[in-house]
Amino acid sequence: MRVLGIDPGLTRCGMGVVEGSVGRPLSLVDVNVLRTSADRPVAERLVTIEKGVDAWIEEHRPDAVAVERVFARSDVSTVMGTAQASGIAMVCAARRGLPIALHTPSEVKAAVSGNGRADKAQVGAMVTRILRLDAMPKPADAADALALAITHIWRGGAQARIDAALAAAGRNRR
Amino acid sequence: MRVLGIDPGLTRCGMGVVEGSVGRPLSLVDVNVLRTSADRPVAERLVTIEKGVDAWIEEHRPDAVAVERVFARSDVSTVMGTAQASGIAMVCAARRGLPIALHTPSEVKAAVSGNGRADKAQVGAMVTRILRLDAMPKPADAADALALAITHIWRGGAQARIDAALAAAGRNRR
Repeated sequence: MRVLGIDPGLTRCGMGVVEGSVGRPLSLVDVNVLRTSADRPVAERLVTIEKGVDAWIEEHRPDAVAVERVFARSDVSTVMGTAQASGIAMVCAARRGLPIALHTPSEVKAAVSGNGRADKAQVGAMVTRILRLDAMPKPADAADALALAITHIWRGGAQARIDAALAAAGRNRR
Repeated sequence: MRVLGIDPGLTRCGMGVVEGSVGRPLSLVDVNVLRTSADRPVAERLVTIEKGVDAWIEEHRPDAVAVERVFARSDVSTVMGTAQASGIAMVCAARRGLPIALHTPSEVKAAVSGNGRADKAQVGAMVTRILRLDAMPKPADAADALALAITHIWRGGAQARIDAALAAAGRNRR
């Protein structure tokens, strides 16, 4: 499956596309960071993000979109813009009927590094290793977007196996 | 001028259209509250809001859109959804090139009631009086959206007069 991971932000919005399935090597399809200037009105910046996400979905045709779940307890100065950017990203995906999953930063860190409190450098290093890249994706928003996509494939795979097992158990009971 | 005021929210999104200009009686064009169910995924709820705001802009053709400015210090349980809904509303307006203004709750309360700390009932009562309505618009989100539109017309008018005076002063200096 092909997953678009989005690390939402008004100033920098990371977008990473990863392809693969559970138990097989994953591969990087593309990664980018959308930037908008703090000098521009928020509405204009959000439209730029909408266009950028739309263009990426159009170009890469992901099977699902994974967006970082934003918490109100995050840094107050940026949380409103992050929430708005995440809303725009979700709408871009939902309008096309794409499945959307939200993963928390802790879930992503735990999935790629085995440690829910891993730092940016550890996440970046694990993303580099998992996708067999020559260098760590920069800036951190790019690595975080890829980590979201990786998390989605791995968690989705586990969820699919659990669903299949439950369905099989249900059939056996009938 | 005709202004669409939007009191953003994921569960209830107030939309009020007011027409008029500074120094003349204002009139209610239409008011509505978009509702989305907390049982539905956030992305789907945001798409519902996008469609509702788009349909209203299409129907009422406002000259400007006034959106309540959301603060991170608001109620934590709803602030993320409010921020996302406000982002969607702004994008709907910005995509059409409509001017967008953000007004804080205090600015709105001060504009319609003369008191930046007025309560919901006072704001509702003043909106009813200003628009010469038979009854107070309900729920509060409807009254708040109308108060935003009223604020925008009154503040915009003052700003336009200041701009005109400054322009005239500039001409006189030349």
